[in-house]
Amino acid sequence: MDKPLKILHSSLNKRVIVELRGGRGYHGILDGYDVPHMNLVLKNAEEKIEGKENIKHGTIIVRGDNIIYVSP
Amino acid sequence: MDKPLKILHSSLNKRVIVELRGGRGYHGILDGYDVPHMNLVLKNAEEKIEGKENIKHGTIIVRGDNIIYVSP
Amino acid sequence: MDKPLKILHSSLNKRVIVELRGGRGYHGILDGYDVPHMNLVLKNAEEKIEGKENIKHGTIIVRGDNIIYVSP
Amino acid sequence: MDKPLKILHSSLNKRVIVELRGGRGYHGILDGYDVPHMNLVLKNAEEKIEGKENIKHGTIIVRGDNIIYVSP
Amino acid sequence: MDKPLKILHSSLNKRVIVELRGGRGYHGILDGYDVPHMNLVLKNAEEKIEGKENIKHGTIIVRGDNIIYVSP
Amino acid sequence: MDKPLKILHSSLNKRVIVELRGGRGYHGILDGYDVPHMNLVLKNAEEKIEGKENIKHGTIIVRGDNIIYVSP
Amino acid sequence: MDKPLKILHSSLNKRVIVELRGGRGYHGILDGYDVPHMNLVLKNAEEKIEGKENIKHGTIIVRGDNIIYVSP
Repeated sequence: MDKPLKILHSSLNKRVIVELRGGRGYHGILDGYDVPHMNLVLKNAEEKIEGKENIKHGTIIVRGDNIIYVSP
Repeated sequence: MDKPLKILHSSLNKRVIVELRGGRGYHGILDGYDVPHMNLVLKNAEEKIEGKENIKHGTIIVRGDNIIYVSP
Repeated sequence: MDKPLKILHSSLNKRVIVELRGGRGYHGILDGYDVPHMNLVLKNAEEKIEGKENIKHGTIIVRGDNIIYVSP
Repeated sequence: MDKPLKILHSSLNKRVIVELRGGRGYHGILDGYDVPHMNLVLKNAEEKIEGKENIKHGTIIVRGDNIIYVSP
Repeated sequence: MDKPLKILHSSLNKRVIVELRGGRGYHGILDGYDVPHMNLVLKNAEEKIEGKENIKHGTIIVRGDNIIYVSP
Repeated sequence: MDKPLKILHSSLNKRVIVELRGGRGYHGILDGYDVPHMNLVLKNAEEKIEGKENIKHGTIIVRGDNIIYVSP
Repeated sequence: MDKPLKILHSSLNKRVIVELRGGRGYHGILDGYDVPHMNLVLKNAEEKIEGKENIKHGTIIVRGDNIIYVSP
C-alpha cells in the first residue's frame, strides 16, 4: 500500500486537519475515505473560512479535488 | 462500498447542505446521485449565493465538479 | 439509470434553466444531451450574463464542463 | 449519434458563433470538429475580445477546452 | 483523420499563430505536434505577452493545455 | 524508472522543499509518495504561506495536484 | 517518436528555459523527464518569479501540469 494511503488509513477514527483551496479548513474525526479520489468523511467537523468563521457539522463528505493537505 | 458513497446513500430522501465553489450553497432533499461524478439531484432546493440571495427550485441537478462538501 | 441522468432525460422538450460558471445563465427547451459530458442542446435559448444582458439564440450547444446546475 | 454531436454535424459549412471563456467570441464557417474534444475548425473567422477587438483569421483551430457554447 | 488534426498537419513547416491563455501569443514555424495533447514545437518563435513584450526563441515546445487557438 | 520518480525515490527520508500553487511552501522529511498522483507524505513539516506564516505539522499528506516543484 | 518528445529528448543534459503559469520561470540543465506528464528534472536550476526573485536549487522536479513552454 502506498504511503499516503497508509497514513490516511492509520488516521481513521482520529482527529485530522484538512486544508482546502479557497482558504477553507476543516477539523474533525476521519470517518472514511475513498480511493483514488481522496474524498473524505469527517465527523464532528468544524469549518474555518479565512481563519474566521466557525460552522459545526455533524458529518461532512469533503470532495478530494479541493484538498491541499490532510494532517493527522 | 466506500464510506463517502455509503454516507451519501444513507442521506437519500433526507435534507442535505451542498457547498459549491464560488460562494454558492444549496439546501434540499437528496433525491439521487451518480458515481463517480457525484452529480446530485436535490428536491425543494434553496440556493444561497454569498449567503445573501435566496432562490427556490423544485428540482436541480447539481454537477459534482463544483462541490466542496455535502453535509447530511 | 442514474437519477441525475433520469431527471435530465425526463426534461427533454421541456423548459430548463442552466446555470454556468462565470455568472452566465440560460433558459431554453432541452433538445438533447450527451453522456457522460452533460453537453446540452437548448432551443429558443435566452442568455443572461450577471443577470443583465439578454441575448437570444435559436439553438445552442452548451458544454457540460461549465455547468453548475440544471433546473427542470 | 448524440444530439449535441448531431447539431454540430449539421452545422458543417455553416456560420456558427463560438463563445469561449475569458470574454472571447468567434464567428466563422464551421469547417470541422473532432470527438470527444470538440476542437473546432473555423474558416473566415472573426474574433471579438470583450466585445471590442476585431481580428480576422483565414482559418483557426479552436481548442474545445475553452468553449462555453456553440450557436449554429 | 479529423479536420482539426488535418489542418494542423497541413500547417507543418509553415508560419502559425498560437494564442494561449493568460494573454500570451506566439508566432513561429510549426515544426511538429503530438496527439491528443496538441503540444506544439515552434521554430523561430516570437512571444508576445499582453501584446507588448517581444522575446525570441530558437525552438519552443508549447504545452497544448494552454492553447486557445492555432491559426495557420 | 523515469527520472522524476527516481529523484523522488532517492529523496526518501531526506529533507525536501515542496512549492504549491497559491503561495504555499512546505519543508519536511519526505516519508513517502504515490504514483502517478505524486501525493507526498512529509514528516516534521513546516508551512510557509506567502513567505510569512509558520505552522508546524508532525505529518502531512500533500496532494500532488497543487505541486509546482519538489526540490530535494 | 512525436516531435515534442523528440525535442525534449535531444535537450537532455543541455540548458533549458521552462516557463510556468503564475509568472514563474526556471533555467537549468534538463536531467530527465517523464511521459506523458512532462514532469521535468532540472539541475543547477535558477528560479525567477515575475522576473524579479532569484533562488537557486541543486535539483528540482517540476510538475508538467504548470508548464507553458520549454525552450531548449
